[in-house]
Amino acid sequence: MSETAGGAAAAMIEYADASAEVRAVYDDIMATRKTDWINNFWKILAHDPPTLRRIWANIKEVMGPGALDPLTKELVYVAVSVTNGCRYCIASHGAAARAKGMTPAQYAELLAIVGLANETNRLAVAHDVPVDERFR
Amino acid sequence: MSETAGGAAAAMIEYADASAEVRAVYDDIMATRKTDWINNFWKILAHDPPTLRRIWANIKEVMGPGALDPLTKELVYVAVSVTNGCRYCIASHGAAARAKGMTPAQYAELLAIVGLANETNRLAVAHDVPVDERFR
Amino acid sequence: MSETAGGAAAAMIEYADASAEVRAVYDDIMATRKTDWINNFWKILAHDPPTLRRIWANIKEVMGPGALDPLTKELVYVAVSVTNGCRYCIASHGAAARAKGMTPAQYAELLAIVGLANETNRLAVAHDVPVDERFR
Amino acid sequence: MSETAGGAAAAMIEYADASAEVRAVYDDIMATRKTDWINNFWKILAHDPPTLRRIWANIKEVMGPGALDPLTKELVYVAVSVTNGCRYCIASHGAAARAKGMTPAQYAELLAIVGLANETNRLAVAHDVPVDERFR
Amino acid sequence: MSETAGGAAAAMIEYADASAEVRAVYDDIMATRKTDWINNFWKILAHDPPTLRRIWANIKEVMGPGALDPLTKELVYVAVSVTNGCRYCIASHGAAARAKGMTPAQYAELLAIVGLANETNRLAVAHDVPVDERFR
Amino acid sequence: MSETAGGAAAAMIEYADASAEVRAVYDDIMATRKTDWINNFWKILAHDPPTLRRIWANIKEVMGPGALDPLTKELVYVAVSVTNGCRYCIASHGAAARAKGMTPAQYAELLAIVGLANETNRLAVAHDVPVDERFR
Repeated sequence: MSETAGGAAAAMIEYADASAEVRAVYDDIMATRKTDWINNFWKILAHDPPTLRRIWANIKEVMGPGALDPLTKELVYVAVSVTNGCRYCIASHGAAARAKGMTPAQYAELLAIVGLANETNRLAVAHDVPVDERFR
Repeated sequence: MSETAGGAAAAMIEYADASAEVRAVYDDIMATRKTDWINNFWKILAHDPPTLRRIWANIKEVMGPGALDPLTKELVYVAVSVTNGCRYCIASHGAAARAKGMTPAQYAELLAIVGLANETNRLAVAHDVPVDERFR
Repeated sequence: MSETAGGAAAAMIEYADASAEVRAVYDDIMATRKTDWINNFWKILAHDPPTLRRIWANIKEVMGPGALDPLTKELVYVAVSVTNGCRYCIASHGAAARAKGMTPAQYAELLAIVGLANETNRLAVAHDVPVDERFR
Repeated sequence: MSETAGGAAAAMIEYADASAEVRAVYDDIMATRKTDWINNFWKILAHDPPTLRRIWANIKEVMGPGALDPLTKELVYVAVSVTNGCRYCIASHGAAARAKGMTPAQYAELLAIVGLANETNRLAVAHDVPVDERFR
Repeated sequence: MSETAGGAAAAMIEYADASAEVRAVYDDIMATRKTDWINNFWKILAHDPPTLRRIWANIKEVMGPGALDPLTKELVYVAVSVTNGCRYCIASHGAAARAKGMTPAQYAELLAIVGLANETNRLAVAHDVPVDERFR
Repeated sequence: MSETAGGAAAAMIEYADASAEVRAVYDDIMATRKTDWINNFWKILAHDPPTLRRIWANIKEVMGPGALDPLTKELVYVAVSVTNGCRYCIASHGAAARAKGMTPAQYAELLAIVGLANETNRLAVAHDVPVDERFR
């Protein structure tokens, strides 16, 4: 298993090459998502099994069934990823949203909101607008 | 009407003191939102009527009826505002989300997703994860 | 002279209480800016004289006479500060811009551009727009 | 006309393939900018005509003649884009600035200011510097 | 126990008022940190016990004994918090770093590095510097 | 010597093609770092000799011997660069950290802290957590 440190290009760890510890996480990802493949994010995190396990446990809990429906959760994930400029995350959570039914029209609206929020966030900060009593 | 430039504290422009141009926007905000008051963001933007008019027109179009439901739109707005650290925007769009039915459980989940996305965004960027073919 | 570490509230170091090393920087700030007072940013950096000296030397060089006029330089400084949400920097460089002639109309336009750039930045990133040949 | 959602690679919509609605915007962009071509940003936004129309209307109003000269406006746009790390926007607005007369010396100064502002923004925030009375 | 949603001001949940589930986390925080009090971050997260439990479990694992010494870990935490402008996080992790031995001179150097990295990050992005072969 | 402005692709300035002014900086970089090559960041900044000289002087002072050990300084630099998404800076300072002894286990922990800090920063901001008296 190759090692990585400090931006050195890391090879993906495929299932066939993975340790039992890593395979257990891969198996849970595939079972939870009802899919038969693992995306690159996990194959790179697999160089650090404790982080692989920990981040997956967080994703499984936070993105699992709850008060918000699964599509809304992915839309929120994309909104943050666009704001931060994470190309991989936009692609992966955009794909997840499509798989959960996001239409092109919904995606267009999502991006419009994200763009506009980034604009008005700056206007509110620039003017140091005091929070209205009614919002507290 | 007071003027503002470069961080100088700006007074809010109340309806009673507003020009006809500003009142027309205030009227449209209240009619569109079916409410009888104007929040501080607009009262400060009112020092610059073209921006007041333009930003309101954008908000009205982007946040109006469309492919995403009104609550989802507000959740996305909050997600961006939290990521950018805009205190005013978190409060105002959080209040708008509550008015549209957001429950405390939904808000808790929203923040959990926003936090986690900010975490995994950095891991994906740090590792420069290549986008999977299946996501394209 | 009080010490500071890790977010502990730091007292301002006034001229009367400053060491000769710090006074030399304060004197140069006042002479360069043709003013008779020192703003809080420097009075707090003064707890760390090497940083005080270094940052002032950078500001003096970068913001001094050059290819861009002094007002344009302050406008750019404000644009970055609004984007990053630095309240102190918006206020201080906004004041500097006003002192160099910025009108309320110019400030309004500046903020409009900053807001809009923050919006279109996200749209360009979200769509991963390839750079046009003509721009290279 | 191809569709796009969630990070899926989108084809550019060329003038020859565009709907009448999209062509009308393209025509206005070329007429306003006194040019005969359309850059990729618009060709991708064209998948969502309402956003294409809306964003162009904003750009036309905000970047048009006003209190700030056209070159200063582009410099501010580049400053925000560098701060946010938007590669496309740096390239496109950098090209626009060059077309409006920006010299290499001015660009070098612009980047120096943007870099330094990003540095001092963090120092001001880290020290939680209180805003001077004189700046209010 | 009070509820919170969307920016509404939340009361802190003190130990005396906490549920058994929340007390169990508070107890583990105090035992792990060998302290007898709970800071505000946890008292507010306590409105959402699953998030309280989850975030504490992550902090306990990531900030616990490992390959990096405890002080270095806090310095890194402060560096991120300053970059993001999180006032609370700068104060809390700054205090944690002081408790672990950070001197004022070390804190001054930390902030100098954070500021400078924020500057050179923008220069590298603005120039789209290609990664050297030797760094791969 | 080629010129650059506004995102136009810049050629690297190699030692053989450099002016005496630029060579003096290159010589100091190599002597200080006890190395025989110059990385791309400096070769591009060399188009603007005053910035090359100024930024190097800052790096030399801030990253030189001091209260924090050299490896810790690089870890902090990487933490900021990951948070800002600067691919070049992650690679170059990651390589510098490896050269100073960073192990893969330390790098994994560093990234885990950076990710988690980005998460909790947003939770603290979203809840507008008041700073504890004990942290002041």
